[in-house]
Amino acid sequence: MRAASAGERILLREFDLIRRIRERCPIRSRDLTVGIGDDAAVWQNAAGAETLLTTDLLIEDVHFRLRDTTPELLGKKALAVNLSDIAAMGGRPRFVTLSLAIPAGMSVDFLDRFVDGLLEDCLQFQVELAGGDVSSSPSGFMVSITAIGAVATGCAVRRSGARAGDRVMVSGELGASVAGLKLLESGHRLGASGGGPEAQHIQNAIRSHLCPRPRLELGAALREKKLATAMIDISDGLSSDLGHIVDESRVGTIINFESIPCSPALALLGEGARDLVLHSGEDYELLFTVKRERVSEVLALDRDIRQIGEIVSESGMWLKEGSHLVPLSPKGFEHEWDDQARK
Amino acid sequence: MRAASAGERILLREFDLIRRIRERCPIRSRDLTVGIGDDAAVWQNAAGAETLLTTDLLIEDVHFRLRDTTPELLGKKALAVNLSDIAAMGGRPRFVTLSLAIPAGMSVDFLDRFVDGLLEDCLQFQVELAGGDVSSSPSGFMVSITAIGAVATGCAVRRSGARAGDRVMVSGELGASVAGLKLLESGHRLGASGGGPEAQHIQNAIRSHLCPRPRLELGAALREKKLATAMIDISDGLSSDLGHIVDESRVGTIINFESIPCSPALALLGEGARDLVLHSGEDYELLFTVKRERVSEVLALDRDIRQIGEIVSESGMWLKEGSHLVPLSPKGFEHEWDDQARK
Repeated sequence: MRAASAGERILLREFDLIRRIRERCPIRSRDLTVGIGDDAAVWQNAAGAETLLTTDLLIEDVHFRLRDTTPELLGKKALAVNLSDIAAMGGRPRFVTLSLAIPAGMSVDFLDRFVDGLLEDCLQFQVELAGGDVSSSPSGFMVSITAIGAVATGCAVRRSGARAGDRVMVSGELGASVAGLKLLESGHRLGASGGGPEAQHIQNAIRSHLCPRPRLELGAALREKKLATAMIDISDGLSSDLGHIVDESRVGTIINFESIPCSPALALLGEGARDLVLHSGEDYELLFTVKRERVSEVLALDRDIRQIGEIVSESGMWLKEGSHLVPLSPKGFEHEWDDQARK
Repeated sequence: MRAASAGERILLREFDLIRRIRERCPIRSRDLTVGIGDDAAVWQNAAGAETLLTTDLLIEDVHFRLRDTTPELLGKKALAVNLSDIAAMGGRPRFVTLSLAIPAGMSVDFLDRFVDGLLEDCLQFQVELAGGDVSSSPSGFMVSITAIGAVATGCAVRRSGARAGDRVMVSGELGASVAGLKLLESGHRLGASGGGPEAQHIQNAIRSHLCPRPRLELGAALREKKLATAMIDISDGLSSDLGHIVDESRVGTIINFESIPCSPALALLGEGARDLVLHSGEDYELLFTVKRERVSEVLALDRDIRQIGEIVSESGMWLKEGSHLVPLSPKGFEHEWDDQARK
C-alpha cells in the first residue's frame, strides 16, 4: 500500500493493513516457525521452561483519551501493560499478538505511528509480533494485546507465596501515573521536559501515565535469584494489588505509610495525595514479598527498591501511620456495571 | 456474588465477575500450573510439540447483533471462530483466554449465559479457560478470545504448502452461514427446528451462522495422516481464503463451480446465490489441498468432503463453469476504513 500524501483520502483495507504491519516487524527469531499471515502463529517451546500468557484490553475513553497522548506512546503503553504482567511472574516475554478495532475516520498515519511505537518497544524488549486480528469498530479505537512469555519450569512467582515474617517491598515511586492523569485532566499537556523542577515533575508524571515501563529486568532478577516469594505488578493500586497477594497467600500485612515511596508530582495535587498513593493504579511497578534475611540482597539489586511493610499470619491489611494502626481496605480501580443503566 | 432476582438492580464489579467465571470453569488440567487469578497463566508445554496461537475479535454491530442470537450461542461462536483457526493448522486446542468489554446496562444474566455457552463448549472441545481481562465499554459488547493449541513439531499445516497437481478439497456445505445471516436480516428468527423441509433449511442456516462448529477432528486427522499439503478455514469466503493459499504457495488454481457443495438454504435467497457461495465467509469449514494419489484416503475420512478443483503452477484463480474458464477474484469479506469519514 502506498503512503498517504497530505489531504489525500484513503480507503484502508484489512489485508493491506496486515501486510503493512507484517513488513515492518523488526525481529524475526528462529523460534517462530510461523508468524503473521497464517491461521495461527507457531513457535518452538523454550527448553526447560513453562509458558506464560497474559492479555489486556485498552479501550478509548475507558483506558485512554486520544487527545492526551500520541499514537506512538499509546502503542508503547498497550505493549507495556501486558509485558508488566510477564515481569510480575518473573518471566521473559517472547511473543505478542495485536488485535485492533478501528473506527471510521482513523487515519493511516495514526495507525502507522501506533504500530511504530509498539514495534520499537518490541525491539527494545526483544518481543516478536506473532499475529493478531483487525476489525472495524462502530465507536472508538480498541486494542487487545496478548503476551506470551517463558519462565523456568516451576519457578513462576505467584501471588500466593507470601509467608508471615516476609517483608513487603516495592520498586519505583507510586502515584506518578495518577498524578499524570490528573494533570492531563486539569489541562496540562505532554511537552518538552525543560523548565524548572515543578515543570519537570509535571512532565515526568504525564510520561509515567502515558508510557509506563515494564520492570522486566527486575522481575527476572528477583525470580532467578529466588528472592521474591510472591509478586504482582501495581496496575489496580497498592491497596488492591496488596489485597490480591494477602488473599491468595492467606496471610495479612502491616504497611508503614511513611515508607511508601511517593512521586514528587503528588505534591502538586494538594489534598488527597495520601489516598492516591494507596488506591490509584497504573504505576506498573513491582510489589513483592521477600524473606527477612534476603532483604539486603534485594536492596542491592536496584536503588529504587523500598521496604514498606511486613507480612503477618493474621488476615487483614493494616496501615501504620505514626503510632496508629488503621485498617487498609482495597479501594483500587475496578471496572463496574450497573446492569439496568442502558434499559 | 449472589444471584439476581427478577427486577433487582445489580452493580456488577470486575473482581466479582472474574471470581464468578473462575468458579465455573469445568476443566482443571494438570498441565495448567497457574490459571485464572494471577498476573499471567502458566502451563507446561506439550512434549514434542510446538505451540499454536490465534486470536479473534467479535464486536457488537460489526460481527453480531444481540437481537439475532442468544447469549449462549454468542459464547459458543466466540470460542468456535478461534478453535477453527487451530483446526486449520491441524492442531489440538489446549487453552483460551477471554477478554470482555461490557457496556452499561448489560445484565448479569446475559453475562452468565454467555459464559455458560462458552464453558460448555470448552468442555466439549477439551479446552481450558486460563485467563483474560474485563473492562467496561463506552458502547457495545466486545469479545476478544485468544486460543492456544499444540501440534507435533514441524507438522503444522500451513497455507503455503500447495503444489501444482494437488487437488483442492472442502468440507461441509458452503453458503449456509451467509444464508442464515440474510434470513435473519429479512426477519426470520432462531426457533425450533420442526416444520417442513424449507423451515428446516431456514433453521439450519440460521444455526450455521450463529453457532458454527470448528472442524477440529477433521483438521487433526488430515494433519496426523499427513494428507493436507495446505489448509485454511473459510472465514472470509472461498475466493479470499483460496486466494491466501495460492498467494502463500505461489501457485494458481482452477475450481470447478459445479463441484462446490452448496447449502440448500441458498435456494431460498433467489438470485445472487452463485456470488454468495464464492465470496461469503463464516462457514468455518476447512479448505485444503491434497496430493492427487491421496484423494481417496481423504474422501474416506468423512462423507461431507468434496473435491472442487486443482492446483496449477501458473498463478491466478480460475472458475470452470460448463466449458468456460472465467477469472476468479478474491472478493470475500474484508474490513475497511475511510480514513476521513469521522472528521
